[in-house]
Amino acid sequence: MASIFTKIINREIPGYIIAEDDHYIAFLDIMPLVRGHVLVVPKQEISYIFDMDDQLLAGLHVFSKRVAKAIDKTIKCTRVGVAVIGLEVPHVHIHLVPLNTMDDINFTRPKLKLEEEELAEIADRIKLNIS
Amino acid sequence: MASIFTKIINREIPGYIIAEDDHYIAFLDIMPLVRGHVLVVPKQEISYIFDMDDQLLAGLHVFSKRVAKAIDKTIKCTRVGVAVIGLEVPHVHIHLVPLNTMDDINFTRPKLKLEEEELAEIADRIKLNIS
Repeated sequence: MASIFTKIINREIPGYIIAEDDHYIAFLDIMPLVRGHVLVVPKQEISYIFDMDDQLLAGLHVFSKRVAKAIDKTIKCTRVGVAVIGLEVPHVHIHLVPLNTMDDINFTRPKLKLEEEELAEIADRIKLNIS
Repeated sequence: MASIFTKIINREIPGYIIAEDDHYIAFLDIMPLVRGHVLVVPKQEISYIFDMDDQLLAGLHVFSKRVAKAIDKTIKCTRVGVAVIGLEVPHVHIHLVPLNTMDDINFTRPKLKLEEEELAEIADRIKLNIS
């Protein structure tokens, strides 16, 4: 069965998409730790990041850098942090999380619940800063 | 002033080194979240991961994959998680953390205090699984 991310890639379910090329896509995490929390995903449905071949893995991180730089320009933060956990959705996803404190990237704390309008507005602002 | 990681790279202070090439090095985090928590570091002293050029960044992640596969073979875990926080030491470092639960990669919780003997033993076992 297609993962929830594949359904976003295929436009079967909506997503707040920020950037996309032939191999990768970035969209907002709709249960974000903080505002501007983005997921970067390879279009190929691979469960474990360390099962990716070197080239696809390298490309994923270079694509993520482009997205992270746009987040940096958009969201007030000290840095954009990176996390790959992989205990839930079995489709590789890199979390890019604008950080001010260590707790901003603590996945055990409650997620934000944002209105659709605010999510759309955040995605649009980040998208404008993609170069 | 040289970062604490540069001092490990230069053998000015001891480290539990697991793998090394011309550009990157991996050693145990001596204040680990869990047993087998490893740091992967570029030898060039760059503060922010997204300031790395594409090639050095890509190479860092491919090197990390080799190390993560060795951790996977050595430490009982569901997956090896990845985190880059960067709010403390101003020298890029990727945390590779053997995960069984989300809380295993929660940086706000207390770190383990392990004896030198156990750290050395863990490093040796991971090193044997590097391919």
